[in-house]
Amino acid sequence: MASRKSPQDLFVHSLSDVCSAEKQLTRALGKLSRAAQNEQLSEAFETHLQETHGQIERIDQVVDACAIKLQRVKCVAMEGLIEEAHELIDEIDKGPVLDAGLIGAAQKVEHYEIAAYGTLCALAKQLGQTDAAKWLKQTLDEEKATDQKLTAFAEKVGNPQAKAA
Amino acid sequence: MASRKSPQDLFVHSLSDVCSAEKQLTRALGKLSRAAQNEQLSEAFETHLQETHGQIERIDQVVDACAIKLQRVKCVAMEGLIEEAHELIDEIDKGPVLDAGLIGAAQKVEHYEIAAYGTLCALAKQLGQTDAAKWLKQTLDEEKATDQKLTAFAEKVGNPQAKAA
Repeated sequence: MASRKSPQDLFVHSLSDVCSAEKQLTRALGKLSRAAQNEQLSEAFETHLQETHGQIERIDQVVDACAIKLQRVKCVAMEGLIEEAHELIDEIDKGPVLDAGLIGAAQKVEHYEIAAYGTLCALAKQLGQTDAAKWLKQTLDEEKATDQKLTAFAEKVGNPQAKAA
Repeated sequence: MASRKSPQDLFVHSLSDVCSAEKQLTRALGKLSRAAQNEQLSEAFETHLQETHGQIERIDQVVDACAIKLQRVKCVAMEGLIEEAHELIDEIDKGPVLDAGLIGAAQKVEHYEIAAYGTLCALAKQLGQTDAAKWLKQTLDEEKATDQKLTAFAEKVGNPQAKAA
């Protein structure tokens, strides 16, 4: 049975979901960093790990400002995205091909977060939560910047044939 | 044990994964369309269903042009994304709040596909598969257009408070 839910309920549910996603990601990024052969890529994963910790703190800020309580949910989509990355690590030897795969997997994660924070920003604005909207937009911008950084990596690492293409 | 894989192997695996994602999506979009209250949103899901069939045909074209054979894989990330959408449908009554939730869920799906086709385009170019890269880029552009359409919907439907914000 469906229960009537308000825009505020949807906001709380969506924020709880992305909080679960970020926490799962903090546990996964170290493994991605160790699996990468390219040093700069490995460092980029480490940097994003630090950034992710900051994004989780920002979620806590939003929770306080909106006087809401997060639900205990597990983001099943992020679970699947991380599983994909782990499969690549299991199946491909360390090297440029795995690096290309890791970049692709990480970009799927970033795009998941871009969509999630885009929706959250819109909902926060609609609810009149301007501070929350501003903080969520900061995270959205960070995720977009990380995605762009990964696109640049995809062009220069990961494939020995890349320069010939 | 990791097995040595070539850039071509990574391309085949990534294409097989997105093919599974698209097929799962064709089964889910009808349900999303029926769950939406806003008629234009419902029609947008129907339109994207038709588009998705075309995108699967384009994958077949790529398979033929590259003389490759797809692997039998299930895209676990898309499975999770669709599960999220189904949870919303189960938990929220039909109406503007569910519509807002469906838009958010669909944007996560689109962003997954944007990342996936972006990676596939890059890999196809690196492998010198210019026709394949061109077709994959067509799909990438369609996914981006769908995402933009959904962003426009998010601004006008889904939340009765939207106009006041």
